[in-house]
Amino acid sequence: MKSTALSIVACLLLVSVTSNAEEAPAVPPTMSEVLARSSSSDWKTLDPADTLVLDLPSGRVIMALAPEFAPEHVANIKALVAERFYDGLVVVRSQDNYVVQWGDPAEDPAERKPVKKARTSLAPEFDRALSDDLPVTLLPDGDAYAPQVGFAAGFPVAVDPAAGRMWLTHCYGMVGVGRDVALDSGNGGEMYVVIGHAPRHLDLNVTLVGRVVQGIEVLSTLPRGTGDLGFYEDPEQFVEIASLRLGSEIPEADWRDLEILRTGTATFKALIESRRNRHESWFASPTGHIGLCNVPLPVRPVAED
Amino acid sequence: MKSTALSIVACLLLVSVTSNAEEAPAVPPTMSEVLARSSSSDWKTLDPADTLVLDLPSGRVIMALAPEFAPEHVANIKALVAERFYDGLVVVRSQDNYVVQWGDPAEDPAERKPVKKARTSLAPEFDRALSDDLPVTLLPDGDAYAPQVGFAAGFPVAVDPAAGRMWLTHCYGMVGVGRDVALDSGNGGEMYVVIGHAPRHLDLNVTLVGRVVQGIEVLSTLPRGTGDLGFYEDPEQFVEIASLRLGSEIPEADWRDLEILRTGTATFKALIESRRNRHESWFASPTGHIGLCNVPLPVRPVAED
Repeated sequence: MKSTALSIVACLLLVSVTSNAEEAPAVPPTMSEVLARSSSSDWKTLDPADTLVLDLPSGRVIMALAPEFAPEHVANIKALVAERFYDGLVVVRSQDNYVVQWGDPAEDPAERKPVKKARTSLAPEFDRALSDDLPVTLLPDGDAYAPQVGFAAGFPVAVDPAAGRMWLTHCYGMVGVGRDVALDSGNGGEMYVVIGHAPRHLDLNVTLVGRVVQGIEVLSTLPRGTGDLGFYEDPEQFVEIASLRLGSEIPEADWRDLEILRTGTATFKALIESRRNRHESWFASPTGHIGLCNVPLPVRPVAED
Repeated sequence: MKSTALSIVACLLLVSVTSNAEEAPAVPPTMSEVLARSSSSDWKTLDPADTLVLDLPSGRVIMALAPEFAPEHVANIKALVAERFYDGLVVVRSQDNYVVQWGDPAEDPAERKPVKKARTSLAPEFDRALSDDLPVTLLPDGDAYAPQVGFAAGFPVAVDPAAGRMWLTHCYGMVGVGRDVALDSGNGGEMYVVIGHAPRHLDLNVTLVGRVVQGIEVLSTLPRGTGDLGFYEDPEQFVEIASLRLGSEIPEADWRDLEILRTGTATFKALIESRRNRHESWFASPTGHIGLCNVPLPVRPVAED
């Protein structure tokens, strides 16, 4: 059945292309059309063991980790999850057009929840070497912050080809590890999510560890803190973390695998073009350009058998 | 007293500069330092007659209008305010990382609130001619969408010098006028505010009319709609507009004038540099670049006598 269905789709596509060639100049497909034509191999199922599940009273946030970019931080976050470090900690900060952040609100280090087996400090993982193992799909329209930008392993990245380095970028929904002034002071026990216009000045200054793939509205609609930097001034405003788990720990009845569009595929490149050149009838100007943090990164539940 | 105080500040600044020159290489000031050194002439009091005041049950949103860029739309919005068109209409849409929008939710045009004296359609005001009357403070770091970007009259703008045109850009907090497919179908009766990463593909496709200067969190924390494009599916989710007024209509006891930093001043240029090069102790990398929608546009209450 499956191969028959594919053949029919292929035939329809051929007819459509022929028809376009005869009747009108080719119009690039819309994103919906690109996704409708995608094949199952264009999608990658997220590994539940590299996925974080944050449960707040108001809902669930699912995050894909990026061990390709921050292996030490990802490993330590998993160690903190294993010792249930996050459970009972709180969202301490919601700054409009910037970040939501959770951790231990105690100002006195002696009063903070103790770390058992995880590490308490880590060397920063702000960037990494370019590598053939991690190809980058580059964007053509430039960037105010970096020599090149694009996508690798499903994440937005910046590239400095002269230096041979690449790094994750602070687009909307990216997840990072808070730190104090000392560069090695972040261990993953305090994390933040970007909920505003990409604060790209944080690139190369903080270790990013992943991105939200579902439920970001649970964070982005939290009341804003009224203290400096959006910290909640009244402990009654803190939002308690019911639990932070790996996807692989969630009972099967409560879990649905997610898949993301692979960013190295021809389908993703077609998606970029569909967004650079908007031909939906509403658009007066197709734009002809796109910024790094404006490219959608499709996520969907894996189809059930 | 005032001139004495200023003299003391001036002396301290001189000492500080001398001290820097002797002891260490000059470090650019931080934004806080730039603003602390600003003079009253660096600030412009917003004209209450060109200011919109949106009252929702959860709070007040204040918007500065941009008659320099969209005179016809601004005039029509004022005409709609004068006939109390918006009062009792609702927020119909809250799409995460995109926009919040208000208007008349009736799908059937015959059921919509009638417009009395204001116009029901307007030619688009997507861009305007460059003019010596409206100088642009340009940014040096490029932009993915436009040949040049910067600020004019307190608003973020893009510039095409070859075409001699400039236009407002969809940064966080910008206010626009919704339209249907027909370019002249927006009259201001439906408006939206950007609450996510700048959707710059809307530039030159929709008429922008201003920006939020206070209270955007009232909009950005609204529950997200679960329908397509973030529309509320259940009318019970609509958020009713208590009133939309001009600042000049608000009773004095309930009004405090606001002022914005003038974007053509040396102070604003120093602010841009302070944000391009971050020398606060927390920063490992000063960045050395800035994007259009990352430049803060300071707003403050006018000092009381």
